Amino acid sequence: MRIAVDGMGGDNAPIDIVAGCIEAIKENDIEIFITGPEELINTELNKYEYDKDKIKVVHASEVIGNNEHPVMAIRRKKDSSIHKALTMVKNKEVDGVISAGSTGAFLAGATLIVGRIDNVKRPALAPVMPGKKGPFMIIDVGANADCKPLNLVQFAQMGEIYFKNVLNIEKPTVGLVNIGAEEEKGNELTKATYPLLKESGVNFVGNVEPREIPKGEVNVLVCDGFTGNTILKLYEGVASNIFGILKEEMLKTTRTKIGALILKPVFKKIKKDFDYKEYGGAAFLGVDGICIKAHGSSDSRAFKNAIKQALNAYNHDVINKIKSSLENNI
Amino acid sequence: MRIAVDGMGGDNAPIDIVAGCIEAIKENDIEIFITGPEELINTELNKYEYDKDKIKVVHASEVIGNNEHPVMAIRRKKDSSIHKALTMVKNKEVDGVISAGSTGAFLAGATLIVGRIDNVKRPALAPVMPGKKGPFMIIDVGANADCKPLNLVQFAQMGEIYFKNVLNIEKPTVGLVNIGAEEEKGNELTKATYPLLKESGVNFVGNVEPREIPKGEVNVLVCDGFTGNTILKLYEGVASNIFGILKEEMLKTTRTKIGALILKPVFKKIKKDFDYKEYGGAAFLGVDGICIKAHGSSDSRAFKNAIKQALNAYNHDVINKIKSSLENNI
Repeated sequence: MRIAVDGMGGDNAPIDIVAGCIEAIKENDIEIFITGPEELINTELNKYEYDKDKIKVVHASEVIGNNEHPVMAIRRKKDSSIHKALTMVKNKEVDGVISAGSTGAFLAGATLIVGRIDNVKRPALAPVMPGKKGPFMIIDVGANADCKPLNLVQFAQMGEIYFKNVLNIEKPTVGLVNIGAEEEKGNELTKATYPLLKESGVNFVGNVEPREIPKGEVNVLVCDGFTGNTILKLYEGVASNIFGILKEEMLKTTRTKIGALILKPVFKKIKKDFDYKEYGGAAFLGVDGICIKAHGSSDSRAFKNAIKQALNAYNHDVINKIKSSLENNI
Repeated sequence: MRIAVDGMGGDNAPIDIVAGCIEAIKENDIEIFITGPEELINTELNKYEYDKDKIKVVHASEVIGNNEHPVMAIRRKKDSSIHKALTMVKNKEVDGVISAGSTGAFLAGATLIVGRIDNVKRPALAPVMPGKKGPFMIIDVGANADCKPLNLVQFAQMGEIYFKNVLNIEKPTVGLVNIGAEEEKGNELTKATYPLLKESGVNFVGNVEPREIPKGEVNVLVCDGFTGNTILKLYEGVASNIFGILKEEMLKTTRTKIGALILKPVFKKIKKDFDYKEYGGAAFLGVDGICIKAHGSSDSRAFKNAIKQALNAYNHDVINKIKSSLENNI
């Protein structure tokens, strides 16, 4: 697989991005093209010994920041690392792209430059998250703040294909995020979506109430991007709040410090279980190429895992499977 | 204050409901009317020594369950404990009502029997939740799955009055739950609501991203009922998931059991900090009477706190304050 990497995206770019690429080529049969200021990227690369055939630098002089207007930045900064990486996908110079940079710019760029798959009304962002029983996927988490029922049906179809292939679950379950278990519960969107999902051919198991989400019992959770983004951010917020308070309280006395020391392996395990870094990045499904958005705070391990995820999607031919599924269903 | 209590609502009714009432009359100057099957309620009451002038039983032969259709159940079961309690508010025989029973039936009944305050388009359910810095309120958490911008403005006005008076904060801050910090972020609803909130006269501090919610830095959070219910349920779900995993892991070895024993006071404190029981119940704001929905799993302490909350709202004349505020603003 040939893959383009936005060398300047994310809080720890380019240092951790380059480090992640170095780790990735050791473990996988891939060819990486890192976009960014040539000199800067090369300085990082020169810190390592690596197979020079497997990583190449593609010069890009500009960078798009998190605070720039996504669509305007993509339109204006044609020589940005993110624009260059996406253009390589469009031109079929690479099979996929990963960025830890501005989510807005990446999604806007993927839609504008790479383009939608025929029949896909709205591409959607789909991260894999840690649940008690196992990882689960939420689609969409912010690419489409307002959705129509048909959009959610397509999210279900695309999510099912991705989960099945990349997470290796033969028959993933699909649920509709809703504020009640019964079919007639919810808002206008979920009430209209439920019957469509029943008929859609996906392995639909009904509504999933938000209280049940952390259990990870349903593989693919479908919702509009406003709801999905709220779930994603609150999930992180509550967890980090609890761990924060726990830490504060445990450091208060010698006695509790000893308790904390004894329980260190337990906390470490739980923290690992709740670590997004294990799962790499969020797939942007519905565009005509493998586009993975890595977490903005990705370290080298998270970024390496995102690359692995892209490779997995490539090896399972996910894009063509989405194409033929949506052709048949619409 | 005279208050009606639905004696048959909630998982622990009537035992914990009656026990909560007994505790409440000891601590507060109130008169309670418990609705429910006379014999059953009296059997519970007879377990205690208490001032008979302060608790009276109002016979109601029927009970509305959680699985009944709310509006139909309220219309048909006119002799249910919940219907009788709400009717007493309507007839001004009492100043307020509390139920730990079916949320749907309570909200439907409060709207149909007690009735909306003039000018209030949609009453809203507003629980107080535990945050790191302090308690905060979310309004609405499920009474209105679909909302218009004007609804959210009224939620802000009512929530501000309630929080100021019942939680004793001179100038509560009001935030709009949104998936971005900037004014132009969000879905159609939040984008249209933001400018209205700026002009509404409430102490609006802008958007609050879900990740920030657990910090409890903004007092009153405004959103549609679908979003609010999602936040409420996910908040509980993530917290109980983390504590559940923690418990499982800590019971695995003798070593970790010792650590858990040492840290017991820490876990107890955190559990208390995250305990909804401290805050009693959720106010249903916008109806013409103090209507408090206690948590379905309320024990006697939670129910006593819900009664205290109702008394607090009564002593601060919250209903009349909402009336005059909404008169002036619309």
